[in-house]
Amino acid sequence: MGPIPDMMRAVVAEGSGGPEVLRIIERPVPRPGEGEILVRIEAAGVNRPDVLQRQGGYAPPPGASDVLGLEFSGEVVATGPNVHRFRVDAPVMALVSGGGYAEYAIVHESNALPIPAGLSMEEAGAVPETFFTVWTNVFERGRLRRGETLLVHGGTSGIGTTAIQLARAFGATVIATAGTADKCDACTDLGADVAVNYREADFVAAVKEATDGRGADVILDMVGGDYIPRNHEVAAQDGRIVQIAFLQGSKVEVDFRRLMLKRLTHTGSTLRPRSVAEKAGIARALEEKVWPLLAQGRCKPVMDSTFDFDDVAKAHARMDGGEHIGKIVLRL
Amino acid sequence: MGPIPDMMRAVVAEGSGGPEVLRIIERPVPRPGEGEILVRIEAAGVNRPDVLQRQGGYAPPPGASDVLGLEFSGEVVATGPNVHRFRVDAPVMALVSGGGYAEYAIVHESNALPIPAGLSMEEAGAVPETFFTVWTNVFERGRLRRGETLLVHGGTSGIGTTAIQLARAFGATVIATAGTADKCDACTDLGADVAVNYREADFVAAVKEATDGRGADVILDMVGGDYIPRNHEVAAQDGRIVQIAFLQGSKVEVDFRRLMLKRLTHTGSTLRPRSVAEKAGIARALEEKVWPLLAQGRCKPVMDSTFDFDDVAKAHARMDGGEHIGKIVLRL
Repeated sequence: MGPIPDMMRAVVAEGSGGPEVLRIIERPVPRPGEGEILVRIEAAGVNRPDVLQRQGGYAPPPGASDVLGLEFSGEVVATGPNVHRFRVDAPVMALVSGGGYAEYAIVHESNALPIPAGLSMEEAGAVPETFFTVWTNVFERGRLRRGETLLVHGGTSGIGTTAIQLARAFGATVIATAGTADKCDACTDLGADVAVNYREADFVAAVKEATDGRGADVILDMVGGDYIPRNHEVAAQDGRIVQIAFLQGSKVEVDFRRLMLKRLTHTGSTLRPRSVAEKAGIARALEEKVWPLLAQGRCKPVMDSTFDFDDVAKAHARMDGGEHIGKIVLRL
Repeated sequence: MGPIPDMMRAVVAEGSGGPEVLRIIERPVPRPGEGEILVRIEAAGVNRPDVLQRQGGYAPPPGASDVLGLEFSGEVVATGPNVHRFRVDAPVMALVSGGGYAEYAIVHESNALPIPAGLSMEEAGAVPETFFTVWTNVFERGRLRRGETLLVHGGTSGIGTTAIQLARAFGATVIATAGTADKCDACTDLGADVAVNYREADFVAAVKEATDGRGADVILDMVGGDYIPRNHEVAAQDGRIVQIAFLQGSKVEVDFRRLMLKRLTHTGSTLRPRSVAEKAGIARALEEKVWPLLAQGRCKPVMDSTFDFDDVAKAHARMDGGEHIGKIVLRL
């Protein structure tokens, strides 16, 4: 490792559109401020919000970098004032609100985490976004408890594969939906008790059957559209529905009488605009509850494919195609 | 007080329709079973669900009496096996899933409560339904905290007047909506910081103005219809909307993107079908947290009018008319 250069390569979207709008440009290497660390990135995860941002549908929150990328792994190469936990050379993974598709990035040390034993740098770069998202939505917001049933849509997405493993590890029954027989097999291989091919079966009927008519206690949904009233229908009494995206639209007619009579809780959240302090709270909970599971190999990021940094457009095309199972990662 | 008779007078709806379908009939006096007390009723509260039941829109839950009435006050006149708390002659108020419009009723002793000092029997008969409803929905389900803002629709209803007082007593800012200037005055007299006449002002704009654009942290809604998207609009970041009825319909188109981006929680509940054990849990919380406030006069049921038992049809006509402010009670 040589000295820290002044300039680095980074990916932005020039205009909006398909993977062809992605450009690798030169940017100054950022300097760590109060409480921040500078990381030389080794792997950067590709996530659905990156695709939405590229398509022009998801502007970075105020103050965030316009460089794509919400998570990475790498080594600390410099620290700002009042950094207490991580030193130069420490391997870390981190969640950021932008700037991950680059050779270097800064992050507040509270939003970085050590890399558990047994995880490669590529795997570590694929962890933060989905693990933070699943923890805060399924376990904190959705309050999933041992013995309950989780229904997770998009079971083979990065979010889905993480939700299946964590829910199983914490003693829940897991039902996943996916769009092909192969994807359904991937879900059950990861620990899902039931996988429903939504192209061939009505997930409402399938979940009711699998739960003796009770329904699902927690539903993690990124589909929206007509899934919203169907989620209300398939939720158990006192069920919680957590909305994290709307791949099929967010505007829909619902009869809220069912929500009242079944005492449902419909909520949702997005991770990116949350404050450093809020993300630090999620990081602490993950390190306490989930990092031991990663270290023991009881859960791990499901890796779909790795692309060279120069092939970032190919990585996005892979996600656009929807054939992937698990995480897509850029290698630097 | 003489011996307990075999038969009693009680009110049922013969068919469904206006107040004229109410009939005072003869019924056997019920006998207290395991853990139950028999109460000679002195006052019975009239509630909106009684009107809905009379209109044919709200059948009693399985196992509940077809005699109208969800709350009453009176004196214990007999006890079943394994009753530990209340003895014959004890004055009590109670929440029931039916049977309140009658000379006698049975209730599990865990769903009865002592009458705080300073409350008349008529006032006591007007307490349970609204206090149980407000406690479980605003404080338990909605998690209203000191310093937060509650928006309560229907501020002069039994529920509304109770919610205004309790929210103020627990340190929240309260904004109420009501349909006339007099009703708005009644809301502020009870402690509401702001009252919005919904016929003259848009409550969304009024609440935003009153909260410097923040919105309401908890919204208690019994209106539904187009109030649902407007509640989503006026809710603060991390706001909770609790739905307890739908006076204007429950089917509506909503853009759930706002729910996700603001991390709202939309939930709701009904009290009547809940188990004796669940109602007992609410009763314990009320006795601990709210009964001292009633005893100190820091809150009390707002009494609209009292009708003789024989005038039950007039009492319902008063509620149908919508002119009332606070509770309507039958006196036995």
